[in-house]
Order: sequence, then C-alpha cells, then structure tokens
Amino acid sequence: VTATPLGPGPEFDRIRAIAAVLGSRATGLGDDCAIVRVGTKTLALSTDASVEGVHFRREWLSLEEVGWRATAGCLSDLAAAGALPIGVLVALTMPAADPPAAFASVMDGVGRVVTSVGGTVLGGDLTKGDVRSITVTGIGRVESVIGRQGARPGDELWVTGELGGARAAWMAMQAGREPDTAARARFALPVPRVAAGRRLVEGGARAMIDLSDGLAGDARHLAAASRVMLRIDLAQLPCHPAARVEAETQGEPAEVFAAKGGEDYELLVVMPPGATGNVGIAWSRIGQVESGEGVVLELAGRAVALEGYDHFA
Amino acid sequence: VTATPLGPGPEFDRIRAIAAVLGSRATGLGDDCAIVRVGTKTLALSTDASVEGVHFRREWLSLEEVGWRATAGCLSDLAAAGALPIGVLVALTMPAADPPAAFASVMDGVGRVVTSVGGTVLGGDLTKGDVRSITVTGIGRVESVIGRQGARPGDELWVTGELGGARAAWMAMQAGREPDTAARARFALPVPRVAAGRRLVEGGARAMIDLSDGLAGDARHLAAASRVMLRIDLAQLPCHPAARVEAETQGEPAEVFAAKGGEDYELLVVMPPGATGNVGIAWSRIGQVESGEGVVLELAGRAVALEGYDHFA
Repeated sequence: VTATPLGPGPEFDRIRAIAAVLGSRATGLGDDCAIVRVGTKTLALSTDASVEGVHFRREWLSLEEVGWRATAGCLSDLAAAGALPIGVLVALTMPAADPPAAFASVMDGVGRVVTSVGGTVLGGDLTKGDVRSITVTGIGRVESVIGRQGARPGDELWVTGELGGARAAWMAMQAGREPDTAARARFALPVPRVAAGRRLVEGGARAMIDLSDGLAGDARHLAAASRVMLRIDLAQLPCHPAARVEAETQGEPAEVFAAKGGEDYELLVVMPPGATGNVGIAWSRIGQVESGEGVVLELAGRAVALEGYDHFA
Repeated sequence: VTATPLGPGPEFDRIRAIAAVLGSRATGLGDDCAIVRVGTKTLALSTDASVEGVHFRREWLSLEEVGWRATAGCLSDLAAAGALPIGVLVALTMPAADPPAAFASVMDGVGRVVTSVGGTVLGGDLTKGDVRSITVTGIGRVESVIGRQGARPGDELWVTGELGGARAAWMAMQAGREPDTAARARFALPVPRVAAGRRLVEGGARAMIDLSDGLAGDARHLAAASRVMLRIDLAQLPCHPAARVEAETQGEPAEVFAAKGGEDYELLVVMPPGATGNVGIAWSRIGQVESGEGVVLELAGRAVALEGYDHFA
C-alpha cells in the first residue's frame, strides 16, 4: 500500500522517507485521517501535536485556549473526512511545577471544543517535560469515505467561511499590537467545521482537505493526491474583515494575505459542477479542477507564486 | 460518569483534577485504555507520550529503539485490555535539523513492534521541536472488556514473565556501566504481552494492568479501581537474572529491586482461585485479593514499603 501523494517540501520529504521505510507495514499515510473499518462501520482517526514555542506561545493564549486550539486542529481533520467525532485522547506534557489546576485548565478547553461537536474526552496520558506540548488523537464515524483523492477535471473548488482571520491576529501579536477581537477568536478558538464537512459529503463532495497550513500548500496536497491541476482565482477568496485591514498595513493584496494564512481550519472542497445547497455557513467558489498537476493561483489575470507552510522548511 | 479510582500521588492528583473539571464531558478516565463501542464491536484506545530526557536518552537508545520502546508502551496498554491491535498513529516531534532518515529510523522501530503484534502504522503527524518526543496512540479490538476493576476477595494475583530486567539495564547505564545484554533488550525493545493478555482474558481473568511504573504503584491502581486490598508475597516475584546481579551490587534483596522496576511491561492479572493454563509465557502467582484497600507487600513475613513511579512526585 502506497502513501497518498503529497505536495513538495522538506516536511513532506520526511513523510515520503517514512512511507518508503515502512512499506506495507503502513496503510494510507499522507491523508488527513486514517480510515479503519470495524465490522460494518468505518472510523476516521487523526493525531495532531501542538508544541509550545512552535505552535503556540503562552503569552498569546490562555491554557484553556491551548487545549481548545490543539483539539480543534485535530477535529478539523475529522471534519475534512466528513466524520462525526466520537471523542479524543490527549497526551499532555507540562512542567512538573505546573499545578493540577493548570492541567485541568488545558483539559477544560479540550472538553469545551470536543463537546461542541458531539464528542467526549475518552482518555489520555500525563507526562512531565520542560516544553509544554499537547497531542490530540481524534476518532470519529464516517458514513462514506472522502479524502484528498477524487477530484476530476471539470469539478469546482470551494472554500467554507472566511480566510486570513487567524493570520491577521498572529501578525498583530507578532508585532506586539493588540489583535482584532474577532480575528483573535479565529486564532485562539477556531471552530472545526464538522457540521459543514458532513453536509458537504452528503451534498456530493468529491475531495476535501482542511486549511491548516495555508491555501497554496493544502491545495497542492489535494492536487497531488487527486493527480489533477487546481486553478484558483484569488479574487474570489472570502477574506476575513481583519485580514483586509492587516493586509493594508502590510501593503499586500487582501486575497494574497488571506491565501497565505494558515490555521483558519476552513474546508477546501471539490464539488461536481453546479453544486448548490446549504452547508450551515457561507461557502465560496474559488476555482476549478483541470487536467495537469500542481496549483495555479491567479489574481487579476496574473499568476501569483505562494508557498504553503512547511514545518521543516 | 466518574473516573476509575486511582492510587495516591501528585500525578494522579492531576488526573483527578482533570476528571473533576471535565465531569460528564469525559468518559472512563483513569484506566489503561478507553473503551469505545462501534456498532456491534468494541474498541480499546490508548495514547502514550515519550519525551527525550524524561523517558529516554539518545545516548542509551538508537532511534529505532526510541520508536520501538514508545510504541511497545502503548501496545502494552492494549495488551492489558486483552485487545488485538489494529494499528497505531504516531505524532513525532524532532529538531528541524534531523534529516528525513532520522524520522524514518524512529518509524522503522514503530513499524517493527506494531507488526510483531499484528497491527500496522495507520498515520501520524510530524512536528519540529527542540525536544524530541513521540506520542503513540493505539487502537485494538476487544471481545470482552477487562480493566482494573473486577478483582474480588479470594481471587489470586499473578504476573507474567520476569521483573526487574529493564531496571537492571537502567541502573547500569545510569552508573556509566555496560548493561547486561538481555537486560538491555528488556529496556530498549520491550515485548508487549498482547498474546498473553488475550489468553488471560479467555482464561477468565477478572482484572489486569500492565507494569509500567513499578509493581507497587500499578498494584495500588488496581486495588483502588477494584476497591479491594492486594497482598503480595515478594518472595514469589519472578526476578530477571540481571536483576539478581544488579540487586546484589545495590545491596538490596532481588525481589525488592524487581518490584521497584518500572517499564518491564509485564501484566499484573487477577484470576479466580485455582487458575491454570498456558498463556504462552511463564506466569507466576504472587499474591491474593482480600477485602480492604491498598497494597501490602511482604518479604519473609515483614511488610515492605514501596512507592510506584510518579511523573510529578
């Protein structure tokens, strides 16, 4: 069994090296979720690590928000698989000096977001360590399997919600400025699009991925897995209002700013032509699927070169 | 839903604080595995973090052994639930400077141990971070649910294999001495007792826990969960040969040395009186279940006071 093809980059070179050494000892590496059949049912599983200083800073987030945000990232993978979450397991590493209440605060954030999508906290593991980290593993039920494969030329590319809000907050905090309140909420308390993901699958979605590392990189993974080319019209990108303001500060077109933003946890979805319907939140058509490979991003008729986020670049 | 009662200690105070804040948002915290029913099937899930400098040192273990050992710890939890592993998800944090081959080496160790018990690598997540860590989440199928609860007065207490080997290696390496080869293998490449766990459940086991933090502490968790007292005759403890040698160096009775040893990943199991049968490896009767609470450890008719390992003590 081979791994799902991935876009370029040193992070994905590492996944390719792992897939090569594991060979048939691994099944289906490289997608958002592992798909496991149990009896007549199908499960989706995903694991996601958040490390202090890499994924979050304590100055920027409360402990509840650290727990919420790490868990939302994992639940977003389940959303992209059209899964209904059953629950999460949480491995939490904190300094030995952190009191029991600090652990409880992180787990309160975990509990809030997992119950918001109908799941529970199933279990976990506590470890001491100088660097705080939280690894969340989610498990959910799927009715029909959807992944990054399945896009065909002629299909249309859509995105849920608005992009760039989390990046607007991040840029402001990075610069020592107070972030916009709504943008900060997009960063600190992202909403996993579980309900939208299920409605999109019911509505005939062909392929789906969540936007955790920026539109360009995630779209490249989808294109590679489906062996197609994606053409995206950046002018159609739904930009978060705070992204428009922050983009102006940066002297950058709002759509480029929004496309660069990771961690919005919106869904990028491929639908057959002429898709309509209510997915519970706004969704926007931003491009089309063509034969070929890679991703072409255009703004006002010109190609725009953008990279996705790569942990190891 | 309340958490499974746990033994005393600051690590378990943290779990109690988490269970208190989560309330009904959590289900069944405090056991080795989460039990999830999916359709007509029952799954066991467990997550386990290993952190460099806390759980392992690079001078002591190859990268393959880091991957094997972390995964064996998780699979041992599945073994204690009598589960047949389906596979594992692995969140791996390594410095950005580590090359793709280093990631592949860790995952090779993961793949070797998970296939040794019939599972596969289902997926994972790669993250950069200055402190290496690996969090393994295992999923397995169970036919009948067994946990730490279920021991009754009159039952007998057994342990699989031999104890103290991992500790003998650890003490030698800690002192800068070359460890005994067999003891080092117990430390670096522990064998999860999956086959034995399943046979013990089929043979009528009432309660089970894996020995990851030392006999005293793990026995206390089992006693607390089952609301019974466990009386253990240390003279009956099956000691690893290297534990006998190392104990003499330390001037300690071999049985006390072996009881203190964590990370042997043997199974502590409660059987109804008169249990017999072949579990595939040696197993030894070491004590009995009485009404009351806590754990009494005796050697040559005298009580011995021992603590289990506590991450936050």
